[in-house]
Amino acid sequence: MKINPDKECVERSPEAWMRLALSLAEEAASLGEVPIGALLVYNGQLVAAAYNLRETWRDPTAHAEMLALRQASLRLGGWRLSASTLYVTLEPCAMCAGAILQARVGQVYYGAQDTKAGALESVCQLYQVKGWNHYPQVTGGILAEECGILLKDFFAQVRSRQKTRRDV
Amino acid sequence: MKINPDKECVERSPEAWMRLALSLAEEAASLGEVPIGALLVYNGQLVAAAYNLRETWRDPTAHAEMLALRQASLRLGGWRLSASTLYVTLEPCAMCAGAILQARVGQVYYGAQDTKAGALESVCQLYQVKGWNHYPQVTGGILAEECGILLKDFFAQVRSRQKTRRDV
Repeated sequence: MKINPDKECVERSPEAWMRLALSLAEEAASLGEVPIGALLVYNGQLVAAAYNLRETWRDPTAHAEMLALRQASLRLGGWRLSASTLYVTLEPCAMCAGAILQARVGQVYYGAQDTKAGALESVCQLYQVKGWNHYPQVTGGILAEECGILLKDFFAQVRSRQKTRRDV
Repeated sequence: MKINPDKECVERSPEAWMRLALSLAEEAASLGEVPIGALLVYNGQLVAAAYNLRETWRDPTAHAEMLALRQASLRLGGWRLSASTLYVTLEPCAMCAGAILQARVGQVYYGAQDTKAGALESVCQLYQVKGWNHYPQVTGGILAEECGILLKDFFAQVRSRQKTRRDV
């Protein structure tokens, strides 16, 4: 991973943090993974930087957000991440949205919408449900176009490779 | 862990599998963890046996179901667990319910309801939402009373210890 959390403690805008998350998503793409990146910032300091590793690890839970939450908890020595902000390039799925509740993450910024599996606005609105013991603040659409283009380009390449294989 | 997946490939009823999950939940309690156990059965064979380790690992994602899914994927060499059945002593939370969708688990049996965080019937009904790419079959209430009593006893002991500490 090119990003070193120890060197990332400067004040940044949500767009600047999202640009870092985008660079992680690009690393995922270079491994053949769906390009999604996530960061966790705790009291202004970057404490976790991760990308989707579902195929590499053959693990259905290895989404970028999940790995960032696990990394941050390990680093901070506890599973309650109340003062933290999560940045992720794609709208979280139900698993990741639920994990954000479990970890008591204070704020979430995400990039592109996920019309197929997004659980914050697209397929369902998990945080509109009454009865959870925690509700993060959520802002979507940060560098949405760039985050979305990275995903579209990745899937276009996958389809192109599949077509080439069929045509050979 | 006392259960050896390699020796568990006999035909069992949902109640018999749940009894194994309950024994895992008891192991969790002995570590001071909220007693929840989970099993994953693939083509009739036990491939994963786990219990909640959130406090021990200081990891917000270390619920019994999540660990069972990760263990099963590692064992089976892939993240798609379509032919599998998950047994868990407590109604899954949103994170675990979402992970079950991610892993394409075919069937879920759970024990007690979780009125505070359950995402299948109690706080929300995640699988009633239209638009997911997968819907597991779900049956709740398997050994519900025993699964619930184990949790109630655990929390009663925690409160009793806290009271003793305050009174000393």
